[in-house]
Amino acid sequence: MLFHVEMTVNLPPDMDPDKAAAIKLKEKEMAQQLQRDGIWRHLWRVVGQYANVSVFDVRDGAQLHEILSSLPLFPYMDIKVQALCRHPSSIHEDDR
Amino acid sequence: MLFHVEMTVNLPPDMDPDKAAAIKLKEKEMAQQLQRDGIWRHLWRVVGQYANVSVFDVRDGAQLHEILSSLPLFPYMDIKVQALCRHPSSIHEDDR
Amino acid sequence: MLFHVEMTVNLPPDMDPDKAAAIKLKEKEMAQQLQRDGIWRHLWRVVGQYANVSVFDVRDGAQLHEILSSLPLFPYMDIKVQALCRHPSSIHEDDR
Amino acid sequence: MLFHVEMTVNLPPDMDPDKAAAIKLKEKEMAQQLQRDGIWRHLWRVVGQYANVSVFDVRDGAQLHEILSSLPLFPYMDIKVQALCRHPSSIHEDDR
Amino acid sequence: MLFHVEMTVNLPPDMDPDKAAAIKLKEKEMAQQLQRDGIWRHLWRVVGQYANVSVFDVRDGAQLHEILSSLPLFPYMDIKVQALCRHPSSIHEDDR
Amino acid sequence: MLFHVEMTVNLPPDMDPDKAAAIKLKEKEMAQQLQRDGIWRHLWRVVGQYANVSVFDVRDGAQLHEILSSLPLFPYMDIKVQALCRHPSSIHEDDR
Amino acid sequence: MLFHVEMTVNLPPDMDPDKAAAIKLKEKEMAQQLQRDGIWRHLWRVVGQYANVSVFDVRDGAQLHEILSSLPLFPYMDIKVQALCRHPSSIHEDDR
Amino acid sequence: MLFHVEMTVNLPPDMDPDKAAAIKLKEKEMAQQLQRDGIWRHLWRVVGQYANVSVFDVRDGAQLHEILSSLPLFPYMDIKVQALCRHPSSIHEDDR
Amino acid sequence: MLFHVEMTVNLPPDMDPDKAAAIKLKEKEMAQQLQRDGIWRHLWRVVGQYANVSVFDVRDGAQLHEILSSLPLFPYMDIKVQALCRHPSSIHEDDR
Amino acid sequence: MLFHVEMTVNLPPDMDPDKAAAIKLKEKEMAQQLQRDGIWRHLWRVVGQYANVSVFDVRDGAQLHEILSSLPLFPYMDIKVQALCRHPSSIHEDDR
Repeated sequence: MLFHVEMTVNLPPDMDPDKAAAIKLKEKEMAQQLQRDGIWRHLWRVVGQYANVSVFDVRDGAQLHEILSSLPLFPYMDIKVQALCRHPSSIHEDDR
Repeated sequence: MLFHVEMTVNLPPDMDPDKAAAIKLKEKEMAQQLQRDGIWRHLWRVVGQYANVSVFDVRDGAQLHEILSSLPLFPYMDIKVQALCRHPSSIHEDDR
Repeated sequence: MLFHVEMTVNLPPDMDPDKAAAIKLKEKEMAQQLQRDGIWRHLWRVVGQYANVSVFDVRDGAQLHEILSSLPLFPYMDIKVQALCRHPSSIHEDDR
Repeated sequence: MLFHVEMTVNLPPDMDPDKAAAIKLKEKEMAQQLQRDGIWRHLWRVVGQYANVSVFDVRDGAQLHEILSSLPLFPYMDIKVQALCRHPSSIHEDDR
Repeated sequence: MLFHVEMTVNLPPDMDPDKAAAIKLKEKEMAQQLQRDGIWRHLWRVVGQYANVSVFDVRDGAQLHEILSSLPLFPYMDIKVQALCRHPSSIHEDDR
Repeated sequence: MLFHVEMTVNLPPDMDPDKAAAIKLKEKEMAQQLQRDGIWRHLWRVVGQYANVSVFDVRDGAQLHEILSSLPLFPYMDIKVQALCRHPSSIHEDDR
Repeated sequence: MLFHVEMTVNLPPDMDPDKAAAIKLKEKEMAQQLQRDGIWRHLWRVVGQYANVSVFDVRDGAQLHEILSSLPLFPYMDIKVQALCRHPSSIHEDDR
Repeated sequence: MLFHVEMTVNLPPDMDPDKAAAIKLKEKEMAQQLQRDGIWRHLWRVVGQYANVSVFDVRDGAQLHEILSSLPLFPYMDIKVQALCRHPSSIHEDDR
Repeated sequence: MLFHVEMTVNLPPDMDPDKAAAIKLKEKEMAQQLQRDGIWRHLWRVVGQYANVSVFDVRDGAQLHEILSSLPLFPYMDIKVQALCRHPSSIHEDDR
Repeated sequence: MLFHVEMTVNLPPDMDPDKAAAIKLKEKEMAQQLQRDGIWRHLWRVVGQYANVSVFDVRDGAQLHEILSSLPLFPYMDIKVQALCRHPSSIHEDDR
C-alpha cells in the first residue's frame, strides 16, 4: 500500500562537516537502493526547505516504520506520515 | 514545473444532493481531462479524509492558479500549494 | 494492519432530533457489526468529548477509507488517522 | 479506569550511546512488567515516529502519574493524557 | 479522583432568548445540585470569557463523562479535561 | 482576587542533580509557606506532566508577579495566568 | 489594577444594518462613559482589523468581567485578557 | 505614529550572571531614555511572564526597527509588532 | 511608509451571484484607483488561494486602516498587516 | 515566475562575532548580486524582526531552491515560500 511521507531535516548547523557528509552519503545510498527496489516510489525536494515529499509503496505500516527508522537521518528529521489510497477520479494505473 | 497540492473538501452536509452530485461529476471530468493532458500528474485519496494529495506539472504558477480556481469544488476547498523540484537523490526520470 | 483513528463528532445543535437519532442508530449498528467482524478492534469514548478513540484492523488503507467514508456520521466528523505497528516492547499477542 | 497516553521520545542525537542503551533497556523492562501486571493494557508504535500510543488500566490518576513519572524516559518525553470510558456502541468486554 | 475541566460556551448570538434562558436556568440548577453533592468541587468564571474553570471529584472518568454530557449546555461547549492528582508540595487536605 | 496559574517545568535533563535537588527543595519550602499564608490557595499535579494547576489569592497582579518571579523554578517554567472571578452559579463560599 | 484587553469583533456580514448600527452606537456610548470614569484608560484601533487594544484600570477581575460582559458587542467578540503590573524600568507615573 | 509591541525575553538560565546583569542594566538605561524622549510611551510588565507590553510613538516603521534592533536584549527576545491608530470611540487626546 | 498586507477572501459560497459580482467590481475599481495614486504599490495573487499579497505606501497606520476598512470586501477578509522598512542589503530605490 | 519568500534568521546569540560578521557580509554580497541580476526583485526588512520579505523572479522552483539553499544564512533561517501570479486587478506592468 502507499504512504505519503514528508521529511524535514534539522541537522545542527555546527555539526562536524565530515560526520554530516558521511550521514548524507549513506542516506543517499539507501534512498537510491529503495527507489531501485520499487519501494520509495517518488522523491521530491520542497523548494526552499531542507525537506522532501515522498511516496512509499510497502506491504504495511510495519515495513514503512522499519525503513524510516533505519535511515541515517532519522534522528534529525521531523516526519509526517499519511496513508494514501486510490482516488476514484484517478486514471493513473500507478496511483493505486 | 511541479507543484504539490493538498485539497480538502468542505461541502456543507445539508447541501442539496443533486447540486452536490452535479459539482462532483463536473470536478471528476475536469480532473480526468487534466490527467489525460499530463498536467495533473498524480492524484491520491488521503485515507479517512475527504481530501486528496496531488502533483501538477504546469508551465508556471499562473497556469496552476488558472486550473485550481476553475475547479467546481474550488469555493469549497482548503488548498495548500508547495513548489517542488528534483531531489538530488532521486533516480526517477519523472520526478524531475 | 492496524490504524489508530480519532473521531470527533460535530452535529449541528439545531439538527432535527429525529434525523440525528436515525443517523446515530445506523452508526451504532455499523460500528457493532464491524466490531463483530474483528475490524473495529477497539472503541473508547473520550471523557468530556463527543469523540472516540478507535483501533482498526484492516487489509490496507483502502479498506479503512471505504469503511470510514461510509459511516453515517462521516460528513459530521473530524477524523485523524495514524498507522500503527508492533512495538518492540509489547508482550500482547494482539497488539501486532 | 482507562487512560489513553501518547508518548513521544526526544532523546538528544548526541547522547552517549551506552547511556541511551541503558535507559532504553530499563524502560523496556518496566514496560513489560507493567504489561504483565495488566496495567499497561495496550502498547503500539506510531509508524514513522519515535513514539507510542498506549492504554493504561489504573486505579486513578495518581497511580498513572506515579507510573509515568518513574519511567526512565520520562525526562525526555512529551506525554499527552486523555481519560477514556466505555463507549455506548462498544461490544468489547475489555474496552470498559 | 479529581479532574480539571475548562468549559467555554458558544451560544449562537441569534438564539431565541427564551430558549437560551431556559437552558441556562437548567444548567444552573444542575451545577448547584452537583456542588451540593460534593462532585463539582470548584467553579470559577474566567474574566472576560463566557467560560469557567472547574474541579470535579468523581469515582472515575465514566462518571465525569456522564455528568458533562448531560449538562444542557454540553452541545454548545468546548470542553477540555485534565486528570489531576495530589501535588507533593501541597499542604491542603482537600487538594487530594 | 483570584488567579488561575498553570506552571510547566522544563528542567534540562542533564542539569547537575544536586543543583536540581536544591532548587526543588527551595521551591517546595516557598510553595508551602505561601499555602500556609493563604495565598497559594490550591495546588494540584497534572497527571503525566511535570506541571501544576494552581489558584492564587492575592491583592492584585503586582503581588502575583512578585511571587511567581521569585520562585526558584521561575527561569525554567512556562507559566499561563488567567484572572478568575466568582461564577454566578457557584455556591462555594471560598470560590469568590 | 491594570488589565490589557484585546477585543476582536466578528459581526456577521449579513446582520441587519439598523441592528448593527444600534449595537455599535450603544457600545460607543458605554466605551466613552467608561473612559470618562477613568476605567477604560486606553483604547486603540489595530490597523487593518475590526479590533482594539485597550487598558482597563479596575478594582479587580470581578469588576472587569462585569464591564466586558455587559458591552453590547460582547456576544460577537473574541476577547483576550492579560493582567499587567508596573514594569521596573517604567518612569511613567500612570503606568502603575 | 503608534505601534503596539510585545517583547518576551528568553535569556538562557545558565547565562553568566554578570553578563546578564550588564545587559539588563544597559537595557534599562535605554528604555528610560526613550521614555524621557517621549518615544517609548507606555511600558507594562505582563503578570507571570518575563515580558512587557509597550506602546511606541515613532516617525515610522524604520525608526521603530532601529530602536528595537539596538536594544541589548534584542537577540534574546521574541517581538510582536502591531500598528495602531486612533479608535473612533476614544476620547483620550494622547491615544491618537 | 510601507506595509505588507495579506488579504484572504472568504465569500460565502451561497452568496447571491449578482451581489458578489457587484462587490468584486467595486473592489477592483478601488484597487486600481489606489494603484494609480501610488498607494497600493504592489498587488499579487497567491497561487491556489482566493488571496493576495500587497504592499502599501501610506502616510501612517491611520491612512492604511482608513483604506483597508473601506474596501467592499473588508467584512469578508482575513487581513494580516506587517510594517516594513528598508533592508540594509537592498539596492532597489523603490524598496525604501 | 514570481515567488514570495519570507526569511527569518535565527543566529545563536553566542555565535563567534567574527564568524557571524563573515556570514552576513557574504550574504549581503550575494543578495546584492542577485538584485543586480534582476532575480531578487524586492527585499524589505520586517519591522522589529531579524527577518525579510522578498519577491524573486526565477525560471522555476528549481532555480529558486538552488539560490536559497546556497545563501550563507540558509542553515540558520526559517523560510516560507509562496508562488505568486498576476492579480486580475493589478495595473503594475512589473507585478506579472
